[in-house]
Amino acid sequence: MSEKHLQTGDILPPYTGKLRLFAMRFCPYAERSVLVLNAKKIEYDLVFINLDHKPEWIFNFNPKGAVPALEYEEGKAIFDSNIINVYLDEKYPEVPLQASDPLRRAQDKCLVELFASAQSAYYTAAFAPQNVEPSTVENYKKGLDLLQKELEKRGTKFLHGDEPGLIDYTIWPFLERFEALPLLGKPEFSIDKSKYELLVTYMEAMKNVPAVKAYTLAPETHAKFTESRVKGDANYNMLDTSAVCCMRPRKKKE
Amino acid sequence: MSEKHLQTGDILPPYTGKLRLFAMRFCPYAERSVLVLNAKKIEYDLVFINLDHKPEWIFNFNPKGAVPALEYEEGKAIFDSNIINVYLDEKYPEVPLQASDPLRRAQDKCLVELFASAQSAYYTAAFAPQNVEPSTVENYKKGLDLLQKELEKRGTKFLHGDEPGLIDYTIWPFLERFEALPLLGKPEFSIDKSKYELLVTYMEAMKNVPAVKAYTLAPETHAKFTESRVKGDANYNMLDTSAVCCMRPRKKKE
Repeated sequence: MSEKHLQTGDILPPYTGKLRLFAMRFCPYAERSVLVLNAKKIEYDLVFINLDHKPEWIFNFNPKGAVPALEYEEGKAIFDSNIINVYLDEKYPEVPLQASDPLRRAQDKCLVELFASAQSAYYTAAFAPQNVEPSTVENYKKGLDLLQKELEKRGTKFLHGDEPGLIDYTIWPFLERFEALPLLGKPEFSIDKSKYELLVTYMEAMKNVPAVKAYTLAPETHAKFTESRVKGDANYNMLDTSAVCCMRPRKKKE
Repeated sequence: MSEKHLQTGDILPPYTGKLRLFAMRFCPYAERSVLVLNAKKIEYDLVFINLDHKPEWIFNFNPKGAVPALEYEEGKAIFDSNIINVYLDEKYPEVPLQASDPLRRAQDKCLVELFASAQSAYYTAAFAPQNVEPSTVENYKKGLDLLQKELEKRGTKFLHGDEPGLIDYTIWPFLERFEALPLLGKPEFSIDKSKYELLVTYMEAMKNVPAVKAYTLAPETHAKFTESRVKGDANYNMLDTSAVCCMRPRKKKE
């Protein structure tokens, strides 16, 4: 798999007949769908795109031009991580990732909704040049409290149960990135191991889930990418080793 | 049913054992769930709340304090119109409102996502004191084009099929309010009957659906409420006739 991000002027790779996910290597929303595809052991192609210089064809798959988008048939796609993941879970039910009880499914979605304020706090903190408002730290901590309380209430290894489910794969990409904040000069966002013991144990368990392990990146890597983005020159291809020996500039449409 | 909106200091009415929906009479998101409850012929209680002076107990049902929230068991609730509606459809499957094909369900959700930019345009226009940006009108028209094109493609009376479904009840509350914009001094938002013939026919059909008819309000009413809101003194109880003969001020917690 190439880690190179296609950009404006680059051609769309040929369709192989497999499901194809359009993503960006560092995007937490795209990661949600990668994890679900991995967990379900579905074969798929992955195409990374540069979000600052988007290839023209991305709009054929998602009129909003955002990732993730899932091409389920040549030239036809659905988009939005939650829409894609529920679709995958319903279409490929062999490894079910949602609770069988409609109420529990609704409660899982409500948890994701409530956790969203911690996600916003993460973005605010990651991209703030200096100190952040106390309310941002507060919203972040509220998200951690929410998860820890929920893990305690549910009493299972994962939020879904003994095995991770959609709810875990939906929340995880953000927890993975939360650990980059102290490295970005925001020590107030570090996760206190004694206060959040249950949450930290859960995070370690998630890191060892095969679907996650195959795609997860170290906090240092997330921090490095974020720094490049803050500087206004996002280094999308920092993990790409395929072009190391090729010094010729890439063809670009004028 | 009282149209009075409960506010800070007001007590929570006793739970009757029925499903209970917390709403605001003029909120399009809450309307989505009202329509689904109506369409499914589920018995429910409706409690309206004042969103500028929220009763304290609303946060027990939705920590975000927003409507709609659905109390499914005394003191226990789920929230967010889409979460509530999928839950209702799965829990009460007698009148199914979603397509049976997972892909079609995903496509319906994508349509709602794309239509959201027209909803934002509506809010911008409704609350703008003067003229709006041409891009706002453009986003609004894109939303109309999207729906008309989709109706044409699907070739059915409603977006769902011969009968309305979740997709229709999700989009309708906004179409209902779109017709208030010309009355609010925004003639550029009127829906051209010849250009949008199919869409206008669809809108007329929706107005005649019993679940909609029982709750829909005239464009004039929406305009009047919006005007009061723009002035900073939202007249939540403008439809309430229960208190006409009662001139005593309502009890309020100090």
